[in-house]
Amino acid sequence: MRRLQDLSRGTHAGVVTALAAAMLSLGAAPRDPERTPPSDYRFTADHRLEFPVDYREWIFLSAGRGMTYGASANPNGSPLFDNVFVNPRAYREFLKNGRWPDRTVFVLETRKAATEGSINKGGQFQKEVVGIEVEIKDRRLQETEGWGFFEFDGDRKPARQVAKGASCYTCHAAHGAVEQTFVQFYPTLIPVAMKHATFKPQP
Amino acid sequence: MRRLQDLSRGTHAGVVTALAAAMLSLGAAPRDPERTPPSDYRFTADHRLEFPVDYREWIFLSAGRGMTYGASANPNGSPLFDNVFVNPRAYREFLKNGRWPDRTVFVLETRKAATEGSINKGGQFQKEVVGIEVEIKDRRLQETEGWGFFEFDGDRKPARQVAKGASCYTCHAAHGAVEQTFVQFYPTLIPVAMKHATFKPQP
Repeated sequence: MRRLQDLSRGTHAGVVTALAAAMLSLGAAPRDPERTPPSDYRFTADHRLEFPVDYREWIFLSAGRGMTYGASANPNGSPLFDNVFVNPRAYREFLKNGRWPDRTVFVLETRKAATEGSINKGGQFQKEVVGIEVEIKDRRLQETEGWGFFEFDGDRKPARQVAKGASCYTCHAAHGAVEQTFVQFYPTLIPVAMKHATFKPQP
Repeated sequence: MRRLQDLSRGTHAGVVTALAAAMLSLGAAPRDPERTPPSDYRFTADHRLEFPVDYREWIFLSAGRGMTYGASANPNGSPLFDNVFVNPRAYREFLKNGRWPDRTVFVLETRKAATEGSINKGGQFQKEVVGIEVEIKDRRLQETEGWGFFEFDGDRKPARQVAKGASCYTCHAAHGAVEQTFVQFYPTLIPVAMKHATFKPQP
């Protein structure tokens, strides 16, 4: 891949090349447009969600450690880190109006923590992934009010939607600051939601 | 040796066009191309580094809490979180060859931590920013071996390069797993550096 700096000579071809490069920079190689949703998610024919392979190149929202509201709390071990990412298109929409568009997808990645390593002697840094949970907003998921949760195993095979009534649905519906999402824990998004008056009061 | 004045040279129109196209494809709203910094960094006429305003939309590398090797450790207060981001073009180059290209830029953002908030009852989540440090690779910085560090105050005004001999230079040179960067703490990059044999053995 050529560097962006090298791409454009001010020609149409240069811009097209730049766009191709930008797609590569998102991790999305050109694919069949009939089958490729724009950098968000895709279902298999038997209604399983495919693993979002490029989520580490999406927008990072925040990280926590040992937070107890999530399904990935690890009460019997060393507290885990969690990192939250959202697809770039949904992020851009949110910046404009403080709401999540259809086909929003969040990825919650949990990782082990370590203290001893290299020159680090205190605190904790992140190690290997121990779990991936995904939340999507999709108007077709009417049984679960337009939102769906999915948990991926280590093999990252396509995942079935978590059944209606599970705690993830009830907790996000009851406590999400914006729609069914925990914007209250994403510091760069809180002022956006405040500005657009989409931030629900927190008890 | 090239003079520092060279650092502030502007981008030419073709590059601006390519970058604008690339930002559009990344989901960015159109902006005034005259005001759009390239997605890495830019110097002022008096050799200060401008604040990288869009770093939160770059590639997230990892987060830590209370790590003691960095300049942002907070020994007298609650341990801080740190988040590390790198510009997308440099990330793409690194994936290909395990090395950082010229005009690589890392941002280390430190944030306060909180435990009590909303439904969270344990662990910690991130709050407001308390510091921003930037490291760049730029072949023009010959006095500091092609790498430069910059610390931004809360006002985010352009920052002078940290002077040669400061601990950030000596520590990164001595302990960086890849060139002068702490890839040993970025779990998704470790296997890339291993594959390309650019990962220095850790003591």
